[in-house]
Amino acid sequence: MAKIIKNTTPRQDGFYMPAEYAPQEKIWMIWPERPDNWRQGAKPAQAVYAEVAKAISVFTPVTMLASARQYQNCRCHLPEHIRVVEMSSNDAWCRDMGPTFLMNNQGERRACDWKFNAWGGLTDGLYFSWDADDLIAGKICELEGIDRYRLGNFVLEGGAFHVDGEGTVLTTKMCLLSSGRNPGLSKKQIEEKLCEYLNCEKVLWLKDGIDPDETNGHVDDVACFVRPGEVACIYTDDSSHPFYREAQEACRFLEEATDARGRKLKVHKVCLTKKPVLMEGAETIDVTGEAVERKNGELCIASYLNFLITNDGVIVPQYDDENDPLALHQIREIFPEKKVVGVRTREIVYGGGNIHCITQQQPLPLKQENK
Amino acid sequence: MAKIIKNTTPRQDGFYMPAEYAPQEKIWMIWPERPDNWRQGAKPAQAVYAEVAKAISVFTPVTMLASARQYQNCRCHLPEHIRVVEMSSNDAWCRDMGPTFLMNNQGERRACDWKFNAWGGLTDGLYFSWDADDLIAGKICELEGIDRYRLGNFVLEGGAFHVDGEGTVLTTKMCLLSSGRNPGLSKKQIEEKLCEYLNCEKVLWLKDGIDPDETNGHVDDVACFVRPGEVACIYTDDSSHPFYREAQEACRFLEEATDARGRKLKVHKVCLTKKPVLMEGAETIDVTGEAVERKNGELCIASYLNFLITNDGVIVPQYDDENDPLALHQIREIFPEKKVVGVRTREIVYGGGNIHCITQQQPLPLKQENK
Repeated sequence: MAKIIKNTTPRQDGFYMPAEYAPQEKIWMIWPERPDNWRQGAKPAQAVYAEVAKAISVFTPVTMLASARQYQNCRCHLPEHIRVVEMSSNDAWCRDMGPTFLMNNQGERRACDWKFNAWGGLTDGLYFSWDADDLIAGKICELEGIDRYRLGNFVLEGGAFHVDGEGTVLTTKMCLLSSGRNPGLSKKQIEEKLCEYLNCEKVLWLKDGIDPDETNGHVDDVACFVRPGEVACIYTDDSSHPFYREAQEACRFLEEATDARGRKLKVHKVCLTKKPVLMEGAETIDVTGEAVERKNGELCIASYLNFLITNDGVIVPQYDDENDPLALHQIREIFPEKKVVGVRTREIVYGGGNIHCITQQQPLPLKQENK
Repeated sequence: MAKIIKNTTPRQDGFYMPAEYAPQEKIWMIWPERPDNWRQGAKPAQAVYAEVAKAISVFTPVTMLASARQYQNCRCHLPEHIRVVEMSSNDAWCRDMGPTFLMNNQGERRACDWKFNAWGGLTDGLYFSWDADDLIAGKICELEGIDRYRLGNFVLEGGAFHVDGEGTVLTTKMCLLSSGRNPGLSKKQIEEKLCEYLNCEKVLWLKDGIDPDETNGHVDDVACFVRPGEVACIYTDDSSHPFYREAQEACRFLEEATDARGRKLKVHKVCLTKKPVLMEGAETIDVTGEAVERKNGELCIASYLNFLITNDGVIVPQYDDENDPLALHQIREIFPEKKVVGVRTREIVYGGGNIHCITQQQPLPLKQENK
């Protein structure tokens, strides 16, 4: 029913990763609960995850994974049309722990099940252990009857790369060349791995992300493809903004870049928050020694770019910041054909991510597989 | 996606329980693990559950539910074509904890989610607690996108009744009138509940089952429908057999009975084991105070009637008993159109049940529901 495919790669088998703007069958999320990462026993975060799930479900069915302990609580906080499925995890970032779904030209689906090590393992990972997280991609594939490539020796997270669905990968050197992931592999070897498993021809290497201490610079806070040949990128001309340098560099890089098909990219600039979002209420987070400690006043990684494109909708973070309406306006101009919906997600940022980080899309099959 | 239906009943909504011999989409099972019910850390039982799952999967897809702790071990003990899904439970009897699936004349599906209390609750239940078990039916329905009727105040297990799919229920007074289930309801009220929720017109009340101390006499060790108008029933003329009286009484009752359509039942007699199966190796079962203690030499409930009818197959218990071939022969004569397969399940009997007890069929929908 759901096999682990050995001895071949997606490229060899004719499977590639569809872009986020390709038709989606469902969105996977994981219900947050660990009290040593989330404020106030994760209750405020749970409320926001529920809001995100509801916003997505207008456009695409959502399945929320919840631990045995949290199953009933999760079930009663979500409307009936959102499916809740029991699954254990170490934390709640389905972009990074979930499978990377693939498709072939016949519309059949497979997936990549990357090794997950909590964004850096024992070198600079964010918690220990990550055993349950590393099983999630496989469990999802098994649930769905989708065969997968298991890369037990290659560490990667879904938030570390974007694809345009036409041969181009977008990522950052800060993340993919970090010492906590695949220190034994050269940049060239990592590039080959990406191209082989996402079935792409060209990797665009941004230099830095904006969260060196969290995910080591996941690209999904910085830039993404919005359609073939076009990207969105964070931007500010306020040189005092903490992300000024990274935003400026990323925009410049992308404005010079060409994709796998030789197109010069069109770059849509998206603002940053006017004021930096800083950690508050960290004293309500448990200290267990198993997760990186959060401190009041620390800079949080609030990026409007961490949105999810999901069928006819785009779900965009809002921070109660002066620039919230501007971000929505800019993103609406990028996607005139879609409904752009803001959700207030400051609480998720306090936990280290945002809407894109907590979701994973499963593409719509062109034909029905055996289940 | 999957709702709890309130204020109506299956009968009012036109849903009924299909017979076991109706077309099935899949079979649900639960991986055994509790060391205070199963011998030797449940390892021998796990091997036998795997054999049963493999035998079924020749005819019908199988999903095995396994706890987070046992997920990987379960996955590696089963062939890839058997789906493994994480789900917590207190023990491994999917007949009794799983949903009772219903169907309407358009081929849409729903389910009954009975209250489960470990076969008698605090009165004479077999373990404490049963909280995870009582959630299983709902979780399965949620996984499958199937709406359900939740009977939070009516205790029942799937092994306590059979239906012929044409208006008749078969059960036992010993079980359904037991003091640990629904002591506040009269026989008439229970009969009304069965008829309303299984959408039947007539209840055939056998007096006793053969396991008063386990399930209080589940009918699925005694008799079952094999097609409309025909039943199979345990039988022996050896008056020294421990189940002699119950088998004789059950056969006589059924030979006199008429079903909901007024047909006199044809009764197929199925032998019992030549020698009683007695508990062995109980010293390798943990004693925790949470589960009923098993003792060497106790009579085990070994019945050939606890088979599963599953599409073109019938999976039948075998006990390394002199009568094993006779039982297979008799059941083959009952089902000349099906493949009758024996599996050695002595180990499951040591845990308190058999093939029918550990399986639950999900009928094949006539049309595809929304998932």
